[in-house]
Amino acid sequence: MKMYDVITKKQSGRELTEEEIEFFVNGVADGSIPDYQISAFLMAVWFRGMTEEETGILTECMVTSGEIDKLDSIIGKKVDKHSTGGVGDKVSLIVGPMVAAANKGIYVPKMAGRGLGFTGGTLDKLESCKGVNTEISAEEFENIVKDLGFCIAGQSKRLAPADGKLSALRDVTATSGSIPLIAASVMSKKIASGSECIVLDVKCGSGSFCKTLRDAEELARLMVRIGARAKRKTVALITDMSSPLGCAVGNSVEMIEAIRVLEGRGDEKLTELCITLAANMLYAANVDDLESCKAIAEETLYDGSALEKLADLVERLGGDRNYVYDTSLFEESNVTAILVAEKSGYISRIDAYEVGKAASVLGAGREVVGQTIDHTAGIILNKQIGDRIEEGEALATLQAQTLERAQAGMEYLFKAVTISDYPPEERKIIIKSI
Amino acid sequence: MKMYDVITKKQSGRELTEEEIEFFVNGVADGSIPDYQISAFLMAVWFRGMTEEETGILTECMVTSGEIDKLDSIIGKKVDKHSTGGVGDKVSLIVGPMVAAANKGIYVPKMAGRGLGFTGGTLDKLESCKGVNTEISAEEFENIVKDLGFCIAGQSKRLAPADGKLSALRDVTATSGSIPLIAASVMSKKIASGSECIVLDVKCGSGSFCKTLRDAEELARLMVRIGARAKRKTVALITDMSSPLGCAVGNSVEMIEAIRVLEGRGDEKLTELCITLAANMLYAANVDDLESCKAIAEETLYDGSALEKLADLVERLGGDRNYVYDTSLFEESNVTAILVAEKSGYISRIDAYEVGKAASVLGAGREVVGQTIDHTAGIILNKQIGDRIEEGEALATLQAQTLERAQAGMEYLFKAVTISDYPPEERKIIIKSI
Repeated sequence: MKMYDVITKKQSGRELTEEEIEFFVNGVADGSIPDYQISAFLMAVWFRGMTEEETGILTECMVTSGEIDKLDSIIGKKVDKHSTGGVGDKVSLIVGPMVAAANKGIYVPKMAGRGLGFTGGTLDKLESCKGVNTEISAEEFENIVKDLGFCIAGQSKRLAPADGKLSALRDVTATSGSIPLIAASVMSKKIASGSECIVLDVKCGSGSFCKTLRDAEELARLMVRIGARAKRKTVALITDMSSPLGCAVGNSVEMIEAIRVLEGRGDEKLTELCITLAANMLYAANVDDLESCKAIAEETLYDGSALEKLADLVERLGGDRNYVYDTSLFEESNVTAILVAEKSGYISRIDAYEVGKAASVLGAGREVVGQTIDHTAGIILNKQIGDRIEEGEALATLQAQTLERAQAGMEYLFKAVTISDYPPEERKIIIKSI
Repeated sequence: MKMYDVITKKQSGRELTEEEIEFFVNGVADGSIPDYQISAFLMAVWFRGMTEEETGILTECMVTSGEIDKLDSIIGKKVDKHSTGGVGDKVSLIVGPMVAAANKGIYVPKMAGRGLGFTGGTLDKLESCKGVNTEISAEEFENIVKDLGFCIAGQSKRLAPADGKLSALRDVTATSGSIPLIAASVMSKKIASGSECIVLDVKCGSGSFCKTLRDAEELARLMVRIGARAKRKTVALITDMSSPLGCAVGNSVEMIEAIRVLEGRGDEKLTELCITLAANMLYAANVDDLESCKAIAEETLYDGSALEKLADLVERLGGDRNYVYDTSLFEESNVTAILVAEKSGYISRIDAYEVGKAASVLGAGREVVGQTIDHTAGIILNKQIGDRIEEGEALATLQAQTLERAQAGMEYLFKAVTISDYPPEERKIIIKSI
């Protein structure tokens, strides 16, 4: 078989066979197919798509391209959660501790990424606590999950190695937005990492891959079916990403916001989303009915148990648990700038994509793999959509290492916000469940 | 500017600016854009196409990515000829000598390629004459053109280097068939190599890139307009490539067939095409009217002057001129196999693509750059479309180095030919002029 022929077949819109997809994935994993042919193929998939059958096979081949974690030493249901990514998404830092704190014998072995993009990934946010190291061994990961009921650490390269290579190429060839490629990438990692249940948070709106509800639904359905094919109980929620999630966008600022939610005094919509996701995780693992699960999840925020779980994790990963109880310990940025409202009115729009760009130019993200990021850079929104604001009132705070970066971020942030004479229609954070 | 953004712009179907195309071509030429991004971009162009304006700019940028030959020492009009490539196309070996032999002060500085595909390129065919070396210096090339009135030699890497890189990537990423990419590739090389007039032979049919007349017309018109943009007098003929050109497909067999045409006893349609192309080259350089040019061109075949020109070239390139006068000097293959007709009737189809595949498995072509090819491998068709054939009569001869190759070639060749009860409608070799 020749990769050239696999490319032309996809290019002409025909369905690939299992043998062809297997040939492709094996060639990616063992390095026998050169990058330029992989990229051409990915672009052809971007244009032509893949059938559900093709995507399912692609996922399975990516799973078997590496090891599969069994987490045999853990007796109890394992539940994973995955978000397709957005601006201000610190949910993993909150729901992991919540489910663990619920104390129902449910485990959350959460492998997370650093990613490229507007801000760092979950790992970068966690590493805002000095001393924390998320690059731990598989053994240590399993031990922490067993001891704490959850762990958040780096994605092991042993799992779905073909996905690692494909994701890196997709990032630089503008093919990250292909729905079947997203589905296969997400699901191969989740299936290989050994959880029986998977709860997916599919973002929809300007700050995410899926700009339209139609795309988000397509992606969600596809992933749920692929999960079922691999005998994983899979649930998907479609949630709003037209504006940033919560008030903070960056790394340490998001870690601090996660702590606020775990203290029971976080942003209302963000808290609602975390409770719903944690409840779905418990429910997927057969704990009572969904309403009871919500009550259980909520309780972990108000009794301090979830917060303690996060402190435990920070400690086990080599950090100081006091970061979680005293957020003044987080390193501060050199420059702080305040964006004030140019007129009075109601906040009718805070565009997630533009806020993300602002965070990126402030220094919170990375453009190429391996780049160091500025943990202190970020944005704190003082107002949310629907809030009343007066001319000259502080709308947001920007943090950066240099004045130049702060100014550049300010320009983007200014464009991201619209103030209108009337309050906008209310928008729900959870759009639908698949 | 970032290549990522150029890719996304083309991917979404928007027209690229001059700056963006220039950035791309410069990045290809200086190696700053990695292959995987170039490939993703090429595939996006394959799907989205390019406007005439974009293609014109791409061509210009590729021309200026390298040196431009002026051929200043040559006093007289320089005319180039280019074929978009097909099966059995040995025309360059014939028309160059014809135009030079016409002795009208018109020069043909023809740079040719080796190419990948069914058989070798013009250079490989020429090198079937032992001793011939087509990799000569620019100076030597110019000297031969000046002395003989024409020269056929290797494409200099100094000219349009970005095209060299792009063509190599297109070959392995299934993006060679994109009309704007073909047009820019052909025209950038032709413009950079310094001729004032360009005659294009745009092939149409199964053995060429353009399978349909519509595609061939689109490509022809685009190249003529790009030529005009660069102030080159450009003419295009659309010619049939549904069946192989002439009777021979391979390397030495095609060289021998070229000699037969130059002797005035070649295949009728091939001879007609060569006369028409040579006449168009003379006419483009302002020699009389087209009909007179045809008579002039034809005369060079019957007075032996064109044949002598080819012998002169073989000699100047280090070979023995006697090859041209005594074709028994050409090396012979180890194995000769004969395909006989399975029934009586009329040859109604000889599919160019299938014959090309047959030549390729016989060993006449190369799959990767730099591979050595078997000059002796090839096919000689004893019958042409419309000919009457009797059951058991020899239809074609196959030549190869091994019996295995001969058998593999036989299978393809068998599929390539159809014998019908009635003679087919006659098909013209020259479909139209643009």
